[in-house]
Formats: sequence, C-alpha cells, structure tokens
Amino acid sequence: MDMPFTFINSAMSADGKISTKERKQVRISGDVDFDRMDDLRATSDAVMVGIGTILADDSSLTVKSEARRSSRKSKGYDENPIRIVIDSKARTPLDADIFIKGEGKRIIAVSGSAPADKVEMLQQKALVIKTGYEQVDLCALMKELSSMGIRRLMVEGGATLNWAMLSSGLVDEVYSFVGNLLIGGTSAPTLVGGVGFVENDILPLKLMSLEKMDEGVLLKWAVINDV
Amino acid sequence: MDMPFTFINSAMSADGKISTKERKQVRISGDVDFDRMDDLRATSDAVMVGIGTILADDSSLTVKSEARRSSRKSKGYDENPIRIVIDSKARTPLDADIFIKGEGKRIIAVSGSAPADKVEMLQQKALVIKTGYEQVDLCALMKELSSMGIRRLMVEGGATLNWAMLSSGLVDEVYSFVGNLLIGGTSAPTLVGGVGFVENDILPLKLMSLEKMDEGVLLKWAVINDV
Ligand SMILES: NC(=O)c1ccc[n+]([C@@H]2O[C@H](COP(=O)([O-])OP(=O)(O)OC[C@H]3O[C@@H](n4cnc5c(N)ncnc54)[C@H](OP(=O)(O)O)[C@@H]3O)[C@@H](O)[C@H]2O)c1
Ligand SMILES: NC(=O)c1ccc[n+]([C@@H]2O[C@H](COP(=O)([O-])OP(=O)(O)OC[C@H]3O[C@@H](n4cnc5c(N)ncnc54)[C@H](OP(=O)(O)O)[C@@H]3O)[C@@H](O)[C@H]2O)c1
Repeated sequence: MDMPFTFINSAMSADGKISTKERKQVRISGDVDFDRMDDLRATSDAVMVGIGTILADDSSLTVKSEARRSSRKSKGYDENPIRIVIDSKARTPLDADIFIKGEGKRIIAVSGSAPADKVEMLQQKALVIKTGYEQVDLCALMKELSSMGIRRLMVEGGATLNWAMLSSGLVDEVYSFVGNLLIGGTSAPTLVGGVGFVENDILPLKLMSLEKMDEGVLLKWAVINDV
Repeated sequence: MDMPFTFINSAMSADGKISTKERKQVRISGDVDFDRMDDLRATSDAVMVGIGTILADDSSLTVKSEARRSSRKSKGYDENPIRIVIDSKARTPLDADIFIKGEGKRIIAVSGSAPADKVEMLQQKALVIKTGYEQVDLCALMKELSSMGIRRLMVEGGATLNWAMLSSGLVDEVYSFVGNLLIGGTSAPTLVGGVGFVENDILPLKLMSLEKMDEGVLLKWAVINDV
C-alpha cells in the first residue's frame, strides 16, 4: 500500500538543538524561512506534531498567509491542512490552540493505552484514530492516513517524533534550517532525539540543496531508506 | 592581555551529533574535509582536545600530509603543532597515541585535583600546566598559552570542551562540517554539550561562509562574544 510522501521540516541551532534545555521555544530562523514553512504547510494535505510539542509550544499549526488560505479555499480545500497530533495517552488539552485556531480537520492519534474518558472528550473536537497498544503505531497510522487520501504529509517535530518516524523508515525528506546561534546542552532537544542509531544503522542522507536564507542556511536532504 | 585566536573545528551529522550514543567515532565527512582539517592543523600553533576525546578516540592529532609537515619543518617549526589535552585529573594514558605518534610538543592541562603521582608520570612525556582547583581554569590556561607564543589555536572537541570554551567567551570562530547522515539519540554527544544556554544567554553567530563539500556542507561561523 502507498504511504504518504512525508517530509520533516525543522529549524535547529548551529549545534543541532531545536529548543533550549528548558524546552523554551527559540526564534531560530527569520521571516523568509517562516514564509517558506507557511508555504509548505499550505501545500500539504496534513501536518503532524508529537504531543510533546503541543504541550511545550501550544502550536496552532495554521497557515498564516491570508492569500494561501484563500487559495486553498478556492480549490475546494479547508483553509488549513489536516492537523494531526501523535498522542498515545490522549493528553492533548481541550483548550489547546490547535482546537481553537483556524478552520479545518484535526486528528488525534492515540493508542490502546489512552483513557476512555479522555478519548471521548477529544472526539468532540477531532477525529480520534487508535493504533498500537502502549504507543501510537506509526506505520499503521500512516496506512490509515493514506487510505483517507493524505498524499503529502509535513512532520513538524519534535525530537522524539522525528526519531520515531525516521527510525521506522517513514520519512522521505528532511528540510533543516540551520540558524545563526548556539544553544548547547546535553539535555536540549535536537533535530533527532529518541534512542539513537548505533554504528551500523546510521541513516544515510543525500544533500538535495543548500541555500543561504535569513541569517542561516536551509538544507534539504533526501532520506536513503533502502540500504 | 591578548588571547590566542581560537576556532573550533568539528564534523557533525545533519542532526548535530559528533558521535553515536555509544561514543563510537563515525566517519561524518570525506576526503576533502579531512584535507581541509589537516591544513587547519598544519597552520595552527596548537591543537586542543578534551580528555573525553582522548579516552574515546585515542586521537593522535598529528598533521597527516607529508608535504605540510616538511613545510612546517622548513620554516623552523616542529612537524606538528603543540598538542594540548584538557585533563583536570591527569587521566591521559601514558600509552596514548598523542604521546606515541609524531614529533612535537605536548601540553597536558591539569587542575589542582590531579593526583601528584599521575602528574609526575605525565611530566616525563609532556609539559604539564596546572590551573584551577577542581577543573582546568580555561581562561587562565589561555593566558598562559598566549604568553608562550601561541597565537592561533584549533579546538577539536569534544562536546564538553566545546561548551566550556564557548560559554567562557574564548572562541572566535566555528567550522562545522554537516555530514549526510542522521545519528539521532538524546544521549549522543552534539557539537556543543555541557550545561547549555538558557533563553537570554544564547550565543549569536554570524555566517561567514557556506560551501558544498564531499557529500555534505561546510559552514563557517564567527562567534559574537560581545552582546
Ligand atoms: N525548532 C523546531 O523546528 C521545533 C519543532 C517542533 C518542536 N520543537 C521543540 O521540540 C520539543 C518537543 O519535542 P519532544 O521530543 O519533547 O516531543 P514530540 O516529539 O513533539 O512528542 C513526543 C511524544 O510523542 C508521543 N508518541 C506517541 N507515539 C509515539 C511513537 N510511536 N514514538 C514516539 N513518540 C510517540 C510520546 O508521548 P506519548 O507516549 O504520551 O504519546 C512522545 O513523548 C519542544 O521543546 C519544542 O519546542 C522544535
Ligand atoms: N566529530 C567530531 O568532530 C568530534 C571531535 C572530537 C570529539 N568527538 C567525540 O566527542 C566525544 C567526546 O566528547 P566529551 O564531551 O565526552 O569529551 P571532551 O569534550 O573531549 O572532554 C571533556 C572533559 O574535559 C575535561 N575538562 C577539564 N577541564 C574542563 C573544563 N574547565 N570544562 C569542561 N571540561 C573540562 C573534563 O574531564 P576532567 O574533569 O576529568 O578533566 C571533561 O569531562 C567522543 O564521542 C568523540 O568521538 C567528535
């Protein structure tokens, strides 16, 4: 079965961090990169984040440009792509910005370990898809998303979800904006967290493009999944 | 007093890791970058690493190119720049490659907490400089190095030493080669480890150059220390 074409978009410091050790969101890129990200959102069928990112940043994941929202509308789409939260235990707050801001569908992906009462409440706000026992089964979820017609999926972090998607072989491309700052810290989240690869499993990439952007650099990598 | 002009040179994965979580050295860059690094070594007065890197990689830190060694010789220098290990407790093994390979001076920078017997043994192999109580006092050390005539200092990691040097305001430039691979892992060493900056202390950089090199990208950053 076809899987959605999936890419990660992320902004990291020059030392690979996506926030401080306190998980404070940091402005890493500039206006040009923000606009590029907005365009990626507007041209995706769905955008996905982990529950860690919702709890840390309360991201709304909406398309910011009025023109892009109208353009989506005029083509018969919702103003925003489907917004998906990977949230095994149904911890997404009912008053999260993702529910409050912008029109469009929401999906909360939970697992068998999610409390029934929380799932029921989320069902008032979103389509809830259940896969996996303890944690969301990302492969099963991706098949389900594909069967719903999602062809182009943008993953917006954080560190743990990026790892889970990449190590499951589910990611085709990675955009990483490298910003002009150093955050440091052994516990600050990086572009790819999680368990980490050992020597023989390290995931090869192919550099697709590099470009000076704002005060940093935009790198586009293709993931070589079949080695 | 003048401090040495100091730059970090490092190779990191596309997600900012400088080795795997098992601290296994990984080939991140290619031949062109190796040659560039060799040239940086050959044109520096001294190269510096942390004891963690000596224990993990047993780096010799020698200049690899015969031509560059002869060129140094012909100018009246040793074949290799002075090799410095930052090693508070005098843990550098007496049979480390840094002592065995190549001609030239070695400095082991220790602190007041280094056992006297170990210091004595290292003194057979190297100049031992003592600063600081528990750990090496890097500012005091840098002044000492400057007074010895070291004008151009290359720091070759690892994560903890990079952090200590950067957070003490002792680094002027950072070269980072970004390789075409993902290592991942919350515990894998990154370009800058240590405690990490909080929001208001984040260290700004200025992008000096970007260049496609081997299968990755070489970035050169200037550190903005006076903000
Ligand atoms: N600079 C950027 O581009 C950027 C972008 C996004 C986020 N961030 C930063 O990243 C940080 C958050 O990252 P994070 O790593 O803590 O959180 P995250 O990746 O957003 O979410 C991780 C969570 O997803 C859930 N999950 C469900 N199924 C999973 C599966 N199969 N595999 C792995 N995880 C699964 C887990 O919680 P459950 O088990 O409870 O479901 C897990 O803790 C924040 O500091 C944020 O600011 C930065
Ligand atoms: N890819 C690359 O470019 C590259 C380059 C180098 C290293 N690496 C990797 O980096 C890893 C090693 O990094 P690391 O962080 O473990 O070790 P490290 O930075 O090489 O050495 C850190 C040690 O320096 C000593 N130190 C002495 N004075 C200090 C001070 N004032 N501040 C901070 N540290 C001080 C500390 O030990 P004491 O207190 O005992 O002295 C500390 O543990 C290895 O996995 C290696 O492969 C990669």
